[in-house]
Amino acid sequence: MPIAKGYAATDASKPLVPFTFERREPNADDVVIEIKFSGICHSDIHQARNEWGNSTFPMVPGHEIAGIVTAVGSSVSKYKVGDRVGVGCFVNSCLHCERDLYREQYMPGLVGTYNSTEVDGVTPTQGGYADSIVVQEDYVLSIPDNLPLDKAAPLLCAGITLYSPLSHWKAGPGKKVAVIGMGGLGHMGVKIGAAMGADVTVLSQSLSKKEDGLAFGAKEYYATSDPETFKTLASSFDLILCTVSAEIDWNAYLNLLKVDGTMVLLGVPENPVPVHAFALIAGRRSLAGSMIGSIKETQEMLDFCGKHDITPEIEIIDIAQVNAAYERVIKSDVRYRFVIDMATLDKG
Amino acid sequence: MPIAKGYAATDASKPLVPFTFERREPNADDVVIEIKFSGICHSDIHQARNEWGNSTFPMVPGHEIAGIVTAVGSSVSKYKVGDRVGVGCFVNSCLHCERDLYREQYMPGLVGTYNSTEVDGVTPTQGGYADSIVVQEDYVLSIPDNLPLDKAAPLLCAGITLYSPLSHWKAGPGKKVAVIGMGGLGHMGVKIGAAMGADVTVLSQSLSKKEDGLAFGAKEYYATSDPETFKTLASSFDLILCTVSAEIDWNAYLNLLKVDGTMVLLGVPENPVPVHAFALIAGRRSLAGSMIGSIKETQEMLDFCGKHDITPEIEIIDIAQVNAAYERVIKSDVRYRFVIDMATLDKG
Repeated sequence: MPIAKGYAATDASKPLVPFTFERREPNADDVVIEIKFSGICHSDIHQARNEWGNSTFPMVPGHEIAGIVTAVGSSVSKYKVGDRVGVGCFVNSCLHCERDLYREQYMPGLVGTYNSTEVDGVTPTQGGYADSIVVQEDYVLSIPDNLPLDKAAPLLCAGITLYSPLSHWKAGPGKKVAVIGMGGLGHMGVKIGAAMGADVTVLSQSLSKKEDGLAFGAKEYYATSDPETFKTLASSFDLILCTVSAEIDWNAYLNLLKVDGTMVLLGVPENPVPVHAFALIAGRRSLAGSMIGSIKETQEMLDFCGKHDITPEIEIIDIAQVNAAYERVIKSDVRYRFVIDMATLDKG
Repeated sequence: MPIAKGYAATDASKPLVPFTFERREPNADDVVIEIKFSGICHSDIHQARNEWGNSTFPMVPGHEIAGIVTAVGSSVSKYKVGDRVGVGCFVNSCLHCERDLYREQYMPGLVGTYNSTEVDGVTPTQGGYADSIVVQEDYVLSIPDNLPLDKAAPLLCAGITLYSPLSHWKAGPGKKVAVIGMGGLGHMGVKIGAAMGADVTVLSQSLSKKEDGLAFGAKEYYATSDPETFKTLASSFDLILCTVSAEIDWNAYLNLLKVDGTMVLLGVPENPVPVHAFALIAGRRSLAGSMIGSIKETQEMLDFCGKHDITPEIEIIDIAQVNAAYERVIKSDVRYRFVIDMATLDKG
């Protein structure tokens, strides 16, 4: 079995530490990838600390993976050695029912890139904070040549998480879209939404990132700490994407939707949030949710980002800084996504 | 000014009593209607008792009105004396912006049939528990010849409240629709949904109305008091219409939706209901709301009901029984809608 080096959480209360583990022997349809960069997603922290209650240890987090193909199985047709590729939040999906190419992420049988089990239901999967990974070719994405691998990595989760609802709810010219929160997810929503031709407004707690938001393509930028914002923007938006998982008052935001508008939740608050039926009924509004995207849609997103030259703003770190980076993510102290340089695994 | 006789609430704590009042002098574009029948909607009770906090008294409730045209203004082109007509929940709408013929009920400027003010912003409107009403012709509906007036009356609110979401969210062949609650609204949802070709399931607290539900066109009927129901029906429905305004656990019902399914709230619980983001995110589900329908859509619904011979199940009462009927509505002790025979106004 191929040996991989990486960083793992060994239990919920301890920092991540260097960790050596086995990847599976590549099958005929597998691609072996040398991981060059791995993004840090807030959900890595939730899972490393067992905040969702479903963690198994040891756990190598990471589902924003960018690297280079180093070997392919005998039946692999889509990739060859040297290709620039990515891996996102899942590495297999339902094999028991008709595969829905645009909705597989919602189907049972999804195999998470880490903190999950392989299709055998037993072998734990391990993620991208490592020097290599073995993935079935259908779950490998092609990264356009003009996108640097470090900046491409966060597209595999943060990018698709925003692209999918923007695409599904038809953001485009003539549509007014609001993005709640200007973090790793939110800033991708601004860039992608603007590239789709929508009129994008940022709704952030303060105006501290206003200059950035406008530079990323937002037309307007409002502070939600100012009660006037909710008066000024009443009934303004076709689509609102909520990237924050804090427990905010959804009803106040629902009132910012036009008739037939939709607010889409992308983050999961710890507790349920009270919803007034009237906020929905009074304008035939919808409160919806969206989760990452299918493989087909993820490739579409990467090609779209290649075409429009869209990449996240990143801060590159050494793998040894991962625990400090986690603390900064929790404090929203990053503009806008940490990406681990996997070459630094050899430093220590 | 024409004099009308009816029943009114004189304040929130008193029973309705006989009441004589003035209708407006008909304008050139007005239709004068002799009211034959008036349905009792639960919202009549909420407003007569000021449970929404926005009531003005004296108040003549009633927005499920069916009658005969007795006079028309000089410019009226759509109706003539003797026509069978209806009036629903509103008698005027926005005059200040482009009129959206399918969404006017969500626009500002709506004039409620009662407990509202005319476009002058001052004159109170009075509803259908009366012998006559004067309405601008654009807000008068034509009742198909094959629908008896007594049974047609509840279509003007209960009918359109269900027809509009069924139509908007495209209920039809191949779609699985659930209706929560088997009351005045719910039973119309079953009849209309089935006539549209959808596969309709009733979700009611008990099985006490199961025989009725199946006779109205439901394919299946489940008791929500049985926890097994929520296991059996997990991920089953494209559309769920919630007709109850009790505070039920919406999350449990959201889990009954397929991927991309929508649950539509038609009733307004007194308090906000906690919603788990994950119930929405895990299947790209939507929680939406819907409120009555536009005039254009209401006419479409009446024509649909005429074509498919759909009418509500009603219990006809004398106007003097209205207060007792209110108590029975509150106890859900009616199958399925009370309709007041306005000829009984002369009895006392």
